[in-house]
Amino acid sequence: MLAVIAGTGALPAEVAAHAPGRPLICAMAGAEPDMVDPEITFRFEQLGSFLERLKAAEVTEICLAGAVRRPHIDPSAIDAATMPLVPVLQAALAAGDDGALRAIIGIFEQAGFAVRAAHEVAPGLLMAAGVPTKVQPGELDKADAERGADIVAAMSAADIGQSCAVRKQQAIAVENLFGTDWMLVSLQQRPDGQGGLLFKAPKPAQDRRADLPTIGVETVEAAAKAGLSGIVLEAGGVIVLDQDAVIAACDRLGLFLWLREA
Amino acid sequence: MLAVIAGTGALPAEVAAHAPGRPLICAMAGAEPDMVDPEITFRFEQLGSFLERLKAAEVTEICLAGAVRRPHIDPSAIDAATMPLVPVLQAALAAGDDGALRAIIGIFEQAGFAVRAAHEVAPGLLMAAGVPTKVQPGELDKADAERGADIVAAMSAADIGQSCAVRKQQAIAVENLFGTDWMLVSLQQRPDGQGGLLFKAPKPAQDRRADLPTIGVETVEAAAKAGLSGIVLEAGGVIVLDQDAVIAACDRLGLFLWLREA
Repeated sequence: MLAVIAGTGALPAEVAAHAPGRPLICAMAGAEPDMVDPEITFRFEQLGSFLERLKAAEVTEICLAGAVRRPHIDPSAIDAATMPLVPVLQAALAAGDDGALRAIIGIFEQAGFAVRAAHEVAPGLLMAAGVPTKVQPGELDKADAERGADIVAAMSAADIGQSCAVRKQQAIAVENLFGTDWMLVSLQQRPDGQGGLLFKAPKPAQDRRADLPTIGVETVEAAAKAGLSGIVLEAGGVIVLDQDAVIAACDRLGLFLWLREA
Repeated sequence: MLAVIAGTGALPAEVAAHAPGRPLICAMAGAEPDMVDPEITFRFEQLGSFLERLKAAEVTEICLAGAVRRPHIDPSAIDAATMPLVPVLQAALAAGDDGALRAIIGIFEQAGFAVRAAHEVAPGLLMAAGVPTKVQPGELDKADAERGADIVAAMSAADIGQSCAVRKQQAIAVENLFGTDWMLVSLQQRPDGQGGLLFKAPKPAQDRRADLPTIGVETVEAAAKAGLSGIVLEAGGVIVLDQDAVIAACDRLGLFLWLREA
């Protein structure tokens, strides 16, 4: 049986909808999901007991989906089953985002669970390579997409961000800590009118058992408001939520969507 | 004798003020400077005659300073002295910014002139390493500056931009085609309150005979409005215009300015 540890955002509900069978939806106290109802809510300080409860429920696979904030630990709330995990948990919370995630995944695996990424549990979250929209990218867009891939590769190597906007092979927006949506809102104030594309790809080093980057209808709308003429995603590397609505939004707003082979 | 080919912005006037002797100020038609008065204005189509005129005036050194737009060429206006240069000029205009500049510099050198960068002609445009402001950077700022240097190095390698803003070692802004000031204005909408620093450095591959990146009082004011607490420049790599006013603005707004050894 599959347990989904659900954070905020639309991804947990999409995973639950696309996964075979009916997964057990769980949530961490303080980081409850906003779009699914968890059957089990656990405290981070009682992670050990939670894992025992999953085993009793015959869970064998765990999927982490959605955004989760770092918990603040109340040492007095740590229970006996969690005590042996404390050194690993402390190290996890002191690490960067990637390191923290790897440590948590390590705890689940150590306890005998298989940890699966959202797109492994629900492969339908990834779209096939190609262009599913009415508008197709042109030759200039192909050059801009290639430039975008180079820029994001350089950004990923320096751990800056995972998306950029490119026009005439020049970076007109570069994602920072605040994410893709913030970048697109900033770009509404662009001094060069319109044109160009959004490029998004996963970090090469990203642990693929955790969430891939994600876009949805609001990304399409933000890209259109920023004056961009299309969206290019690394095929197999970016989750597309609510895919029919995304394609419809692109067609309505005159954007192309291109799932591009890396 | 030195000739300054002056574009727009404050740099040509500062070069003229700091250079020894009284340089001959020249300008290209269509790209006239806004802060100095040129004695000679030449058409790009008559570059050959212009170079002959400089020689007649006993000019031996040329400094390109300030911003110049790419000219549109009127083939019927090309004069006899410029005709032999046409193949090189055509290639220059078809190249990227760096390539175009190198080609133009090559023409001047071929004609026997020594091409000097603004900071070579007027070394006072660069500030000495150190912290000339009342506020000094702290330990966290030092870590952020190091991260900023890494980010700009990665950005430069991919030809994205030459500055970024860093807070807690994360990129909260990354310069794009629209430049440092645009980045700082965007950052006014930051969701994380305030803090962090602006880091700016030249591209390693930048042809040092052309302009280094530049800051001035408006950069300090924009950084303060963006909630940043300091500015870090690669020492010897960034021109500071109106230096006393820049330090005074930092002191007034509570920012540190750190000329950091690379």
